[in-house]
Amino acid sequence: MLLLSLEILFVLVRPVYAGNVGSVARVIKNFGFKNLILIKPTCSIEDEAYIMAVHAKDILESAKIYDSIHDFLRKEKINYVIGTTARLGGDKNPKRNAIFSHEICKYFPSTGRIAIFFGNEETGLTNNELKYCDLLVTIPTSEEYPSMNLSHAVAVIAYELSLLRKKFRKVPYRPAELYEKRILINYMLKIADIVLDHFDENKKRIYKQIICNWIERIFLTGREVHSLIGFVRMILARLQGLRNKKYGY
Amino acid sequence: MLLLSLEILFVLVRPVYAGNVGSVARVIKNFGFKNLILIKPTCSIEDEAYIMAVHAKDILESAKIYDSIHDFLRKEKINYVIGTTARLGGDKNPKRNAIFSHEICKYFPSTGRIAIFFGNEETGLTNNELKYCDLLVTIPTSEEYPSMNLSHAVAVIAYELSLLRKKFRKVPYRPAELYEKRILINYMLKIADIVLDHFDENKKRIYKQIICNWIERIFLTGREVHSLIGFVRMILARLQGLRNKKYGY
Repeated sequence: MLLLSLEILFVLVRPVYAGNVGSVARVIKNFGFKNLILIKPTCSIEDEAYIMAVHAKDILESAKIYDSIHDFLRKEKINYVIGTTARLGGDKNPKRNAIFSHEICKYFPSTGRIAIFFGNEETGLTNNELKYCDLLVTIPTSEEYPSMNLSHAVAVIAYELSLLRKKFRKVPYRPAELYEKRILINYMLKIADIVLDHFDENKKRIYKQIICNWIERIFLTGREVHSLIGFVRMILARLQGLRNKKYGY
Repeated sequence: MLLLSLEILFVLVRPVYAGNVGSVARVIKNFGFKNLILIKPTCSIEDEAYIMAVHAKDILESAKIYDSIHDFLRKEKINYVIGTTARLGGDKNPKRNAIFSHEICKYFPSTGRIAIFFGNEETGLTNNELKYCDLLVTIPTSEEYPSMNLSHAVAVIAYELSLLRKKFRKVPYRPAELYEKRILINYMLKIADIVLDHFDENKKRIYKQIICNWIERIFLTGREVHSLIGFVRMILARLQGLRNKKYGY
């Protein structure tokens, strides 16, 4: 995969509210992106934008402004343009046929300079602006209220694209391996054999299944599962010791 | 699947900014949710909240306010509490070990009343508030700037949960079936046989693969693929007519 040479540009077309522009700067930085483009903004990028950007002032400061989409595409050497829309087309307006945002990984190019267009807060992308888009994407919102705040739409798309890169934020732990959870389960089943010895086989089987579910279903870190294995081994040792004492073997 | 009896409550713990509360109301309605809970808000839900809520005023009006998490859990009969956090734990603080938001489908209960806690804008959920959570989830943000705006975090989680319901917004078209795209490909390959007849087999093979890629890779609606099939059949008919004329068969 040539993901190294993939560059994503977030393009706000005719944005109206400076606060939204600042919010967008923050959220694209949250997801590790840096390229913000404004096409014919009708707000000035001043106080409110900087307040909403919080620690993404650098993104706002380096944002480029263009007078037209045509100008932007010509100067930025874009390979592929993805438009976003809440209004869908259908057979009469096939240009407005869109894929869902959660399917974006199926169609997203793996290299090149890709621009994602977000329309004006009031109108979205107009039919004329859509002409520049190679692919449209829509977020699967509710029928009742599909119109999202601009920065929320950017948040969802930036989130999906960050998942696409599969380069996740480091976490200070590793998840438990399946075999580690299996070890824990095996000790628990040994414990079950001891403490459920007065139950009939059917009842035992059900209990054991529930014990398996209990461990299989949860998320555990490697450290957690090792601590738990130690813990249940200690339980088992005690039970075996008790049993030895009680029954004399 | 008993998804019918799943109910999700979005809980803001000690929210500070009324604008954020309004934005959250809007985005949860965007994704088809309706339950908003505020625990000990330090802002009053007035003008700014209503401005940001836009068409989600009903969500704000029906939002319930509680004095404490304890009070909320007791009165609302919650089955499972999911907390959100940007700060992760590690081996020293295992309570702060979290799953990623895009893995939530693996661990999310399919029934019951589930509360999702979002912490205060400045502090997030405190260790004390986390004690009430059964599972923690984190959004895979960048290392550099992991702190998201509250309503953006809610947007991402609401988006993931809406995907989980697999009850998507209706679109005014159906996607093309694989076999329909195959029909289109077959006609295109027939055209290739005609127009590439002067190429050697290897070159033909490469051209044909590129033609397949061209159709396989794209998203097409059912209507679009049918129109295209009609179109390429017409091309083929013309080419066959021309060939018949030219070569006299």
